[in-house]
Amino acid sequence: MILVAFLQAQNCSNYPASWRHPDARGDFLSAAYYQHIARTLEAGKFHLAFFDDRLAMPSSYGRSYEQAVRYGIRAVKLDAATVLTTMGCVTERLGLGATYSTTYYEPFHVARVFGTLDALFGGRTAWNVVTSLNDSEAANFGRAEHLAHDERYDRAEEFMEIVTGHWDAWEPTALVLDKASAEFARPEKVHRLDYSGKFLRSRGPFTIPRSPQGRPVILQAGQSGRGRIFAARWAELIFVIEPVLQTAARNYAAVKEAVANAGRDPAQVHITPAVYVVAAPTRTEAEEEMARIEALARPEDVLELLSEVLNFDFARKRMDEPFTGEELAEMTGLRAIIDRVVAQSGKPHPTVADFIRFSGRGTPREFPTFVGSPADVADQMEAWIEGKGCDGFVLAATHVPGSYESFVRYVTPELQRRGLFRRDYAGPTLRENLAPAAGVGARTRSGR
Amino acid sequence: MILVAFLQAQNCSNYPASWRHPDARGDFLSAAYYQHIARTLEAGKFHLAFFDDRLAMPSSYGRSYEQAVRYGIRAVKLDAATVLTTMGCVTERLGLGATYSTTYYEPFHVARVFGTLDALFGGRTAWNVVTSLNDSEAANFGRAEHLAHDERYDRAEEFMEIVTGHWDAWEPTALVLDKASAEFARPEKVHRLDYSGKFLRSRGPFTIPRSPQGRPVILQAGQSGRGRIFAARWAELIFVIEPVLQTAARNYAAVKEAVANAGRDPAQVHITPAVYVVAAPTRTEAEEEMARIEALARPEDVLELLSEVLNFDFARKRMDEPFTGEELAEMTGLRAIIDRVVAQSGKPHPTVADFIRFSGRGTPREFPTFVGSPADVADQMEAWIEGKGCDGFVLAATHVPGSYESFVRYVTPELQRRGLFRRDYAGPTLRENLAPAAGVGARTRSGR
Repeated sequence: MILVAFLQAQNCSNYPASWRHPDARGDFLSAAYYQHIARTLEAGKFHLAFFDDRLAMPSSYGRSYEQAVRYGIRAVKLDAATVLTTMGCVTERLGLGATYSTTYYEPFHVARVFGTLDALFGGRTAWNVVTSLNDSEAANFGRAEHLAHDERYDRAEEFMEIVTGHWDAWEPTALVLDKASAEFARPEKVHRLDYSGKFLRSRGPFTIPRSPQGRPVILQAGQSGRGRIFAARWAELIFVIEPVLQTAARNYAAVKEAVANAGRDPAQVHITPAVYVVAAPTRTEAEEEMARIEALARPEDVLELLSEVLNFDFARKRMDEPFTGEELAEMTGLRAIIDRVVAQSGKPHPTVADFIRFSGRGTPREFPTFVGSPADVADQMEAWIEGKGCDGFVLAATHVPGSYESFVRYVTPELQRRGLFRRDYAGPTLRENLAPAAGVGARTRSGR
Repeated sequence: MILVAFLQAQNCSNYPASWRHPDARGDFLSAAYYQHIARTLEAGKFHLAFFDDRLAMPSSYGRSYEQAVRYGIRAVKLDAATVLTTMGCVTERLGLGATYSTTYYEPFHVARVFGTLDALFGGRTAWNVVTSLNDSEAANFGRAEHLAHDERYDRAEEFMEIVTGHWDAWEPTALVLDKASAEFARPEKVHRLDYSGKFLRSRGPFTIPRSPQGRPVILQAGQSGRGRIFAARWAELIFVIEPVLQTAARNYAAVKEAVANAGRDPAQVHITPAVYVVAAPTRTEAEEEMARIEALARPEDVLELLSEVLNFDFARKRMDEPFTGEELAEMTGLRAIIDRVVAQSGKPHPTVADFIRFSGRGTPREFPTFVGSPADVADQMEAWIEGKGCDGFVLAATHVPGSYESFVRYVTPELQRRGLFRRDYAGPTLRENLAPAAGVGARTRSGR
């Protein structure tokens, strides 16, 4: 089972109310905060600490950022690669992943930032490829509006060709470093890319020798038709949002098939849905804690995030007013949210209240929640793995660092006892640690 | 006296032969290498560790990168901000400066990277503003060629307005962080930039609260007419290249006057020339070491770097063939080099050999060299300060980490004994540490 921590370089976790949790640390602007998380995750043998990103604070609701700032709804956003670097400095094996946008960054820069991280930390880095989709982000980068969906992916394909091409520029034996002969490296083993596409060009040669893991691991989160094609071609670890196991299993099989159709080994491409875990010594304690966590939420959190992710100002509508077909069509961005609200409310024209209730956005119900004793949580995780719904999980935090501390304290030992999770890292690089263990299918499930 | 270390996130120092020095460390791809430098500099109370950058390896000489790779002529270039972050993690007071280009990066991104560093490390960060001028860099970023000189600076002005505007977005008292009332920050104290210029636009609001030093310190190195106007308006620390004290003093006075004319306090803008220091217990030992260092150089180093910085292929000419006026006019980039060769050779049409001999490029003679015993070196540094040639120095390394280790061991104590250099940091932020000490003009020079 693969375990990834879903982190945010900001004042709250995915759950905007998280900063109000009594145990939440307030020093989210310090290296110490992120380094504490890193040490906790490595103690729990997590594969990867992964940072999401957004290149703007929410400011679509009421066409203002007032609420986002007032209630701390993802109002702070630090540069994820910089934060990640501080975490690499205090760990030895933990994988280090961050999001950088193919829409607003240059491929040579992205290749160099992640190439640098992978060199400095001995091959533990991963890049989460996103195509940005948000009007607030476009405004910060001086674009009138974001690119159309398919055009974003066409450009992203070229971006990937450049970034991975640069990472492959130096052959593994290119470096010589012989002071006596003055030979630093073999020119015939360093290659110029000379890439020229429809959207992007880059020449090279790249300025960083090959990393100990070859190149950084590619992460991706696209679940749309076009996003799935992209992931099948490029991704090594795919983040998904799956409300229930049944559909998760269906999509899991489809993605693995798409990977095989793209000529790659499905066993080397890992699918991990986002989940919230609230674990405590007993089920009652965990349920009480979950109730406390959910009580922190405010409707402003939900409306602010929905307006942002759908590029639609929800302040335009009264709470009980159904959206017209035209209005629903106006919404762009993560359209899966609309499908979910329509499906779960049973209304082709849901209201604002339906979006608050069924979208889950901005609440711990956005992802499946595994709440209970160590055995309860392990049972649910095991069911998803056994049911072929996933290869592991991306753990979002209800609060920081408490969610990770309690997971490592209560759940990790139970998963290890059941043989569902390893007791130590397989090797120094992230790609080694993600590789399916030899004979994993034949592992014994002792101690149930 | 201000002391800055002139660092390169690459396989060699400014001096391309440095990697061949017997004491040079070869682990320039590791965090440990840069962290060792950082600890050495902080032990020596250096104000600032500063990384230069170039977004390409040299590949203009013979229109090939072959020599650059073979002899390690700045063939490796890591991302400077990432390397800097690893150094911040092992220091408490050392200033942390890096170059990011206004030509190939986005202002929102630059503001966020340096804003993040300044937050994580408690206000110790500095950004060196460069306008990129090199064809190899343009090719890596998919541009046919670099922007014209003045247009680069026009764009850079807009870039600065955006970056500094974003850094000022959050007032110092904006953050509230009150869990009980759910008030995270005061919206009326967070401001949207809404900048729209001829080249660049950015909206905001910025996503990082104000740093402990207000905003990162601005570094700059422009010595051209346009570059000097830019520096007078924006820079807090100016890097210069001055072969001799006499002209340094003239330029120093001119820059201070330009700063005053721009309506700023000249005492708050520090001018620091690049120098090489080779110090040893005795003058003889230092001179022997300098001879060993100079013997490491190869003519390929010089021709490769000249071709790159002047965007002109020196392989087109025989060694003793004078350049025509047309050829000299073709050269772009750092034109000050041509002026120097013409002046020092006494020839309006110098040869390739003259460029090798007089440009100093790629040799330790590129900057003034202070070679000798601790007293010898301190004498020379004192002469430049007393002669109003500068406010301090940017120390380039003949090899790494030896140059910094020997400076801190031999020269720093002598400077401190003379009252020319402080014995400890003034405070936690870089801007505090750079501020002229109260009563500095009245300091006593004991112990001469």
